[in-house]
Amino acid sequence: MRLCISLAQLARKGEKSNMNVVCSVNPGHCTLISCNFLLLIILQLGLHTVEGVWPLPQTFITSPERYQLKPQSFSFGYRRHLAAQHHCSVLDAAFKRYFSILFPDYASGNDTIRFSENEIFTLTISLDHHYCEGYPNQDSSERYKLNVSAGQASLNAETVWGALKGLETFSQLVYQDDFGSYYINKTNIEDFPQFQYRGILLDTSRHYLPMQTILKTLDAMAYSKFNVFHWHIVDDPAFPYQSRTFPDLSNKGAFHPMTHIYTQSDVRRVISYARMRGIRVLPEFDSPGHTKSWGKGQPDLLTPCYKGGTPSGTFGPVNPTSPSTYQFMASLFKEVASVFPDTYIHLGGDEVDFYCWRSNPYIRAFMHRMGFGVDFNKLETFYIEKIVNITSALRKTSIVWQDVFDYYEQHKSLSVVEVWKQGCYLCEVRKVVKAGLRVILASPWYLDQPGPTHNWARYYNVWPLAFKGTEKQKRLVIGGEVCLWGEYVDATNLSPRLWPRASAAAERLWSNERQTSSVDKAFPRLQEFRCKLLRRGIQAEPLDVGHCKHEYQSV
Amino acid sequence: MRLCISLAQLARKGEKSNMNVVCSVNPGHCTLISCNFLLLIILQLGLHTVEGVWPLPQTFITSPERYQLKPQSFSFGYRRHLAAQHHCSVLDAAFKRYFSILFPDYASGNDTIRFSENEIFTLTISLDHHYCEGYPNQDSSERYKLNVSAGQASLNAETVWGALKGLETFSQLVYQDDFGSYYINKTNIEDFPQFQYRGILLDTSRHYLPMQTILKTLDAMAYSKFNVFHWHIVDDPAFPYQSRTFPDLSNKGAFHPMTHIYTQSDVRRVISYARMRGIRVLPEFDSPGHTKSWGKGQPDLLTPCYKGGTPSGTFGPVNPTSPSTYQFMASLFKEVASVFPDTYIHLGGDEVDFYCWRSNPYIRAFMHRMGFGVDFNKLETFYIEKIVNITSALRKTSIVWQDVFDYYEQHKSLSVVEVWKQGCYLCEVRKVVKAGLRVILASPWYLDQPGPTHNWARYYNVWPLAFKGTEKQKRLVIGGEVCLWGEYVDATNLSPRLWPRASAAAERLWSNERQTSSVDKAFPRLQEFRCKLLRRGIQAEPLDVGHCKHEYQSV
Repeated sequence: MRLCISLAQLARKGEKSNMNVVCSVNPGHCTLISCNFLLLIILQLGLHTVEGVWPLPQTFITSPERYQLKPQSFSFGYRRHLAAQHHCSVLDAAFKRYFSILFPDYASGNDTIRFSENEIFTLTISLDHHYCEGYPNQDSSERYKLNVSAGQASLNAETVWGALKGLETFSQLVYQDDFGSYYINKTNIEDFPQFQYRGILLDTSRHYLPMQTILKTLDAMAYSKFNVFHWHIVDDPAFPYQSRTFPDLSNKGAFHPMTHIYTQSDVRRVISYARMRGIRVLPEFDSPGHTKSWGKGQPDLLTPCYKGGTPSGTFGPVNPTSPSTYQFMASLFKEVASVFPDTYIHLGGDEVDFYCWRSNPYIRAFMHRMGFGVDFNKLETFYIEKIVNITSALRKTSIVWQDVFDYYEQHKSLSVVEVWKQGCYLCEVRKVVKAGLRVILASPWYLDQPGPTHNWARYYNVWPLAFKGTEKQKRLVIGGEVCLWGEYVDATNLSPRLWPRASAAAERLWSNERQTSSVDKAFPRLQEFRCKLLRRGIQAEPLDVGHCKHEYQSV
Repeated sequence: MRLCISLAQLARKGEKSNMNVVCSVNPGHCTLISCNFLLLIILQLGLHTVEGVWPLPQTFITSPERYQLKPQSFSFGYRRHLAAQHHCSVLDAAFKRYFSILFPDYASGNDTIRFSENEIFTLTISLDHHYCEGYPNQDSSERYKLNVSAGQASLNAETVWGALKGLETFSQLVYQDDFGSYYINKTNIEDFPQFQYRGILLDTSRHYLPMQTILKTLDAMAYSKFNVFHWHIVDDPAFPYQSRTFPDLSNKGAFHPMTHIYTQSDVRRVISYARMRGIRVLPEFDSPGHTKSWGKGQPDLLTPCYKGGTPSGTFGPVNPTSPSTYQFMASLFKEVASVFPDTYIHLGGDEVDFYCWRSNPYIRAFMHRMGFGVDFNKLETFYIEKIVNITSALRKTSIVWQDVFDYYEQHKSLSVVEVWKQGCYLCEVRKVVKAGLRVILASPWYLDQPGPTHNWARYYNVWPLAFKGTEKQKRLVIGGEVCLWGEYVDATNLSPRLWPRASAAAERLWSNERQTSSVDKAFPRLQEFRCKLLRRGIQAEPLDVGHCKHEYQSV
């Protein structure tokens, strides 16, 4: 195992020195020593620039001066103007969670140790916008400032979602010495995400994921500052979403109608659990392909395939020629729009196989009537257009997979395109932003493929903006997404397959590119972060030979 | 997900029919219908030959006649001549374990349901050799016969270790219907392993594995009828074995001297836990290479490397020229031989880098004195010879990695060679058996490399005896071993990386080659077995899209 003395370790050792460590993207924040010069010193000493926070904050000033934290005398608080109002439930719950994370060894309540007044340490939160109900959305600010000094820390954020990010950062700054005492160093952080959309896709159709697995993933997502759970909830193999409008969809389309479904109450729980962690829940109801399981509970929905002039008994994509299809879709999406509060909705649209449509004489006759000739792309466009209109009428912004953009002629009716195909994905990104559409990049982050963990660097060395384009075009790249498809993934292996490799993507999406361009510098920090994940009960794979102070304990 | 009606399912459906299913390696066991003819029928019906037991028993006759088992009226018993003696603790403990496995839903003790006498079902065990103390060894018979008929089952085995295998098989025959009732079909099984040595190597040096992880792996091993836990306990990165003779080895060489070690009591617990499951514990203390961590607690053991005529401060393999080396090794192996009861001991001997020996003038002088010239293979041979002699004097059979065989001139002083290198591993196997030595094959089963689970077939399609050789030579291939090296494996991902892929190797090593040559036929049976592993709390990866009635529940 590679051993490095980190700056934080140095800070712990050299407590009496007055060295301040400063680095910043914004030159205006550089104080005391210039960044380049400091970097030079640090490189010469063989140290990392900053240790202890993953993903790396935008501006991070730390000093060797450290303060002891005692669980008995530590508290979270609101700045007075906030405290005067009602407490914020999202933050109150976060205080409870983070208290346990900060002081894992503390057996609460049992001991009543006396402590002097001056040992009290308070983390005080202030929000620019006090509104703490509602849900995070694509415009929510996640910016925060964190200042740690003697006896206190202050966390300022524009929104409650930014405050959650700051709490996570604060929790990562606290460390224990060999005797179990807790410390935090004098620190000054200003932070905000590079990309607004930082998602993880879970696929609950190819394998059913128990609620516990989803909730635990949301926990881990918050630790890496992911903010979108893209719920690929249904697909060909199974339809586990229990619809209140169409209960047969899961009654007949789930692996099991009782044990392998997500009830309305389950879905509400996921959305609420995610919200408490500043995470949006983006549902995907992929069509017209990937819908085999839909056909079981909605018999006339899919296209009957033909062989030699008669129906073969098999079914293809959704039947785009039947008015009943759109009535059904309108009802289903009306329900989905009301169940999932997020303003985005994912419509899928990928990998439509034209074979079945082509075999069906009624589909061909429809094509002829509509003047589509034999261009099935036109038929798919016709279908997607209708679905996009349905969701627009529901005031939802639709996301589609890149396939739709590729065959679509009417680009302007699209909003957000998710790029997933391998190959020159930045070529595709460029095309999409040139058409004035927003992009979510997924291609480089298909983590369902296993691989030795040390290839985390593959997911780190991704540069979503490394294409020729204007500033305005680059701003259309709203973020990226880790996809964990379910062919070979279920509750047994999801966690180690996702973590810490997904955390590599998380830093790329949160942090400044220039500050995080070195895999070698990131490595020890990611190793330390992975140990933190273990300590928090997340089954994160090892990156290399070595150990964590607290290994993962299976139960 | 592929769906297949299995024979067992058919049996459940066609309860009234009298169809008997028979298949056997030994033509003498074929009754009622000949194997080929039956296979033809089964293939035409699209069914599997036998479902429900993994690895596949050598002879398996089952019928649609089924009997209900009720937890309240089920019991294990000894045949009278056994019961008269003291009970066998190994079996008593197994009865307890398997009762929970047989009836997972049974909340013991709470309900006192009345049942009529004729509902009683007893599994009666008889042993040819009643000796039930001691440890399994390389000569232990694992043969058993299992007969299930109305109201009773009888299990006969030569030894207690065979009885454990029979209990495992019995547990896999029991299934639940949709209402939760337990059933078993009329069955007749005669079974024995194809290979005597069926091992799994865990590496506790590159990552420390908590006790719980090791014990849980032993549970899972028993479910696949593995019978050797090859404990690669120490290596370059860490020395977690707490030696009573040389406590500094772990005090200074473990990742942490208190939390990342195996105490004497831990080791005893592993050995005892393994014994209760019919599993041998084979310790490996690999030398002269892979010993960096040894040097920390035993300062003069390793060879100082030289650079430009002076010691460079780094160390190489064990110093083979110093008499103190052999005194140390003799003491260490004396302890190891007494701690680990198995008659085998693994001496390692792989991947010795000559660079450091070559750099050291004292080593070169020794070579000259001994007449070795510049042939460092001779020096290594000299070293291994001495270690083999030490362990022989302790009445242990030594195993070495194939490297030793490759450079060794004195083949006759070797006993067992483990073939691990990739490439034409059967060429190597052939060379070793031609020299009259026993072989353990590991090359095709390096499972530490992750890969999609569906490549389990790669570990199934291995034919250890597919080389040109005499019957006598083939008998020298005593078995095989799954190796799970620790570079990227620890408690977080060990289980899904091992299971169910290791089970594919387990069937290859237990079952008859001719009966298990088809991946397609094995697939649904392995899928069902994997669901059983989940039900028993083993985090076994999915093989493909689909579901299990009881998914793995993370805690």
